[in-house]
Amino acid sequence: MSETLVIRQGTNADYDRFIAQLDGWWGGRSMASMLPRLFFTHFAPWTYVAEQDGESIGFLCGFRSQSDPLVVYCHFIGISPEARGRGVGERLYERLFVDALAAGCTEVHAVTSPQNHGSIAFHTRLGFSMVPGSLEVDGVTWHPDYDGPQEDRVRFKRALQNLNV
Amino acid sequence: MSETLVIRQGTNADYDRFIAQLDGWWGGRSMASMLPRLFFTHFAPWTYVAEQDGESIGFLCGFRSQSDPLVVYCHFIGISPEARGRGVGERLYERLFVDALAAGCTEVHAVTSPQNHGSIAFHTRLGFSMVPGSLEVDGVTWHPDYDGPQEDRVRFKRALQNLNV
Repeated sequence: MSETLVIRQGTNADYDRFIAQLDGWWGGRSMASMLPRLFFTHFAPWTYVAEQDGESIGFLCGFRSQSDPLVVYCHFIGISPEARGRGVGERLYERLFVDALAAGCTEVHAVTSPQNHGSIAFHTRLGFSMVPGSLEVDGVTWHPDYDGPQEDRVRFKRALQNLNV
Repeated sequence: MSETLVIRQGTNADYDRFIAQLDGWWGGRSMASMLPRLFFTHFAPWTYVAEQDGESIGFLCGFRSQSDPLVVYCHFIGISPEARGRGVGERLYERLFVDALAAGCTEVHAVTSPQNHGSIAFHTRLGFSMVPGSLEVDGVTWHPDYDGPQEDRVRFKRALQNLNV
């Protein structure tokens, strides 16, 4: 059995497959409202799917900022529970970095919740730094109510000048 | 008292103001998860605020498709309950149409839920037509599970060649 991991562009058919499983991947937590189809339909050049042995095991939804075209934003990464811990998220981000650099972008942005220690460690490992917010505990700094009431967020930025992934 | 309605570009400060009130505008329904800050931060050229007598009474969040740059997409329109029925949504869409045409786009897309009769009537009045889906009742046609499980959507398209608003 091949272990080759392929990163390819996402499609609307991928959306159908992922969205049907997504809440299950998060242990039943309702995630679908964060991921309307528009990300796959309208930001296809920045949407990537990870495939192993012909099976889709993860995806990344990004887009290029239309306020600042030097910035690429990562909105969502989903990895099937069985495929976690194998560097699939890193490979998806790596592809985003390479394409963003080729497009002339200089920064990648993302946000996560302050409770998501896994995501914070993941982004820090990938070279992201936190944009200082008004709250900080144990080296984690965040922006209260960033995405709405009680929706606090850690803001991440990573420069692309020194691409080393 | 002036009744002049001004349509202007949205900002991050507008997001803070709107998101704090949004669930209240929808009678307590949880809408904030559909509207992360990224739409105001990264799609500012396609985000508009309606202001009357210095008060922000509504907004439209759109973006230009990065899969098909001829398409502009309207993701969200919010109008304060007191300001509804006065054509504020029409004025916001009118600005999107004008800017999209100036940018060389040829179509505007949007989706809504099949239960949202107000939105369906509004889009039809503005010249949108429905993309035929697999279900149809009383002239309304929709796409089951379009935005996830049980998230059925009516898909709207409007050509910009014959702009008449």
